[in-house]
Amino acid sequence: MTRLEVAADSLFGPANLPYGVYSVGGSLPRVGTRLGDHVVDLGLLLGDPVFEEPCLNPFMARGHSAWAETRSAISEAVAGDVPDRAVHPVEEVTLHLPFEVADYVDFYASEHHASNLGRLFRPDSPDPLMPNWKHLPVGYHGRSASVVVSGTDVVRPCGQRKGPADPEPVFGPSVRLDIEAEVGFVVGTGNDLGHPIPAEDAERHIFGVVLFNDWSARDIQAWEYVPLGPNLGKSFASTVSAWVVPLAALDSARIRLPEQDPGPLPYLRMDEPWGLDLALEVEWNGEVVSRPPYAAMYWSPAQMLAHLTVNGARTRTGDLFASGTVSGPTPAEWGSFIELTRGGSAPIRVAGEARTFLEDGDEVVLRATAAGAAGARIGFGEARGRITPSRFGSRTADC
Amino acid sequence: MTRLEVAADSLFGPANLPYGVYSVGGSLPRVGTRLGDHVVDLGLLLGDPVFEEPCLNPFMARGHSAWAETRSAISEAVAGDVPDRAVHPVEEVTLHLPFEVADYVDFYASEHHASNLGRLFRPDSPDPLMPNWKHLPVGYHGRSASVVVSGTDVVRPCGQRKGPADPEPVFGPSVRLDIEAEVGFVVGTGNDLGHPIPAEDAERHIFGVVLFNDWSARDIQAWEYVPLGPNLGKSFASTVSAWVVPLAALDSARIRLPEQDPGPLPYLRMDEPWGLDLALEVEWNGEVVSRPPYAAMYWSPAQMLAHLTVNGARTRTGDLFASGTVSGPTPAEWGSFIELTRGGSAPIRVAGEARTFLEDGDEVVLRATAAGAAGARIGFGEARGRITPSRFGSRTADC
Repeated sequence: MTRLEVAADSLFGPANLPYGVYSVGGSLPRVGTRLGDHVVDLGLLLGDPVFEEPCLNPFMARGHSAWAETRSAISEAVAGDVPDRAVHPVEEVTLHLPFEVADYVDFYASEHHASNLGRLFRPDSPDPLMPNWKHLPVGYHGRSASVVVSGTDVVRPCGQRKGPADPEPVFGPSVRLDIEAEVGFVVGTGNDLGHPIPAEDAERHIFGVVLFNDWSARDIQAWEYVPLGPNLGKSFASTVSAWVVPLAALDSARIRLPEQDPGPLPYLRMDEPWGLDLALEVEWNGEVVSRPPYAAMYWSPAQMLAHLTVNGARTRTGDLFASGTVSGPTPAEWGSFIELTRGGSAPIRVAGEARTFLEDGDEVVLRATAAGAAGARIGFGEARGRITPSRFGSRTADC
Repeated sequence: MTRLEVAADSLFGPANLPYGVYSVGGSLPRVGTRLGDHVVDLGLLLGDPVFEEPCLNPFMARGHSAWAETRSAISEAVAGDVPDRAVHPVEEVTLHLPFEVADYVDFYASEHHASNLGRLFRPDSPDPLMPNWKHLPVGYHGRSASVVVSGTDVVRPCGQRKGPADPEPVFGPSVRLDIEAEVGFVVGTGNDLGHPIPAEDAERHIFGVVLFNDWSARDIQAWEYVPLGPNLGKSFASTVSAWVVPLAALDSARIRLPEQDPGPLPYLRMDEPWGLDLALEVEWNGEVVSRPPYAAMYWSPAQMLAHLTVNGARTRTGDLFASGTVSGPTPAEWGSFIELTRGGSAPIRVAGEARTFLEDGDEVVLRATAAGAAGARIGFGEARGRITPSRFGSRTADC
């Protein structure tokens, strides 16, 4: 048996206890938590076979009360002696996609981000926001199959693009490959078709929180997206962090949502609308280029889930909804490169080089921390991805 | 043992042999085929446990060669004596959603439909089509969890809408509830991330074809869809037919795709681009109001799948992609009520009443037939749905 020691300033202290799926030395993937610099196997720790599954979905499906009981049981167990074979140094394990993604929806919930893009794309418009933006959390469905775990390389996508000066569209590797620094919410238990989730109940359905990089090929997106929205410009890859931080670990990070004006329609109203004070950072080739504040988001996670289901749409265990790019009011807080470089017109210095969009070999890492219980600081791990050159089978050699 | 007799003009003769999932008298769902007016249990017919599963996915995952071998084996087996307990009159069984939907994408592949909507929404524009429309099959991801099997009631969705004269958006039941008569394609085997499916190979990945009704709340959609596309206006329900017609059954329905001008980019080109000659009909409260011809579609299923994956996006067993509304050149061939009623401004007579959009209690049935082998005509069954009044839990009484 082992008594686990954790540094007082660890981002993975007992206030965090995130859930992930790991394997070690070729073993089958199983569910673990992270404590300090160790991964602790939850199947061995708690003797519950639900943690021998290769994803969190069966555990998440048990529901809110079971999540609370399990969190207490883990807390208690890791404070005592832990079986040696349940403990692995974090550098020895492989982390896997922690949950099977059911439906995935991406929102657009930052007023600063939406305004920045509005000014870039519609410079002559008096209002950078579209008329619907302050009345509903605008969002769209993305590709679940393309959600990958942190550390997975991102192959530069090919696709059609057509610049304003091009007479015809051309096909080839994206030349405006961007990131979107986002926060994702994992639905633990869904709702039946025809039975919306009220905003006040959303927190009982949300299991946990992840970092999310919605890689975006701006040139592909610009040509395709009218009128049905983004598709190929986004669907090639989306990176989630390997650890799902339980919503329960973020009680101390809850803040009052910033004032909404105009007041939202009743189904989006709450007695005490809550946001989350998460401090994100965007690292590009080893240099932090932005620190987006999640506290500045306009629409809350509860509002997003209430909106998603208000027409009767069903959600399921494993649904993922993401916030859209997190951008704060100042340039040092913008969460995409199209914003940071003013649409690619103003290169920034990154690790000694002038950059606008991503080049092959570039690596981006998203990180975040938040206040945890008893004065602790808790971490989300990272959402890391490296760009590799476009590659194709021999049948599409024309790319 | 039973020798099954099938009328020569049956739409479910030996040229069809579709796959579905059925149960009878409370039994667990299993895979069957339909022959004439009977459902034949494939697990009992062929002795293969893959057909004891409650969905087609495990069978589809076996791939193209296995599908062909199985189709031959079924053909041979149903021509001989069949075990009595494998045979059920079709009116005695319950049909279930035949496959688990992985990602679902809806296209917009009819030039007539896209032009009709362009004229309705942008009456002053010189070209009813958007600039990208003839260069790529425009599409968007929809909600997999809301795909339901034929016969499932459709609850009228609530949501936000804002007419041009409304100073603020209002919330309530949709007042412009519409259908979209579509054809859906079921992916049997997908591709790995980063490895696109060439258009020429698409037919080896497409397992079968279904009818698809993409119910659409036009008022909700109009208010939400700029700039990220349709979401709540579509995500409340989409109806698929219960029988998946194998692509192999449609060899005789293949036609040369109508001329594409301008010629598409190389990744969308094929030596012999094929379309399908499927004759659809739309029945509204018992009256056929339209006969959309699938043969008139601009973009082919192979082109849609090639486009979906050209950026490296992964597809999986159970992916569903639909054509978008099938509309032909004349009003009697338009596949949505917004087209048939000129945006709701010109009511049509339906079973003796003037109608624009759907009222509570209305029922819509899509059907289709196609040429099968040896001069046979084959059927798709139906995609049926009835509108029920909006209903909500007590927490959202404001709807």
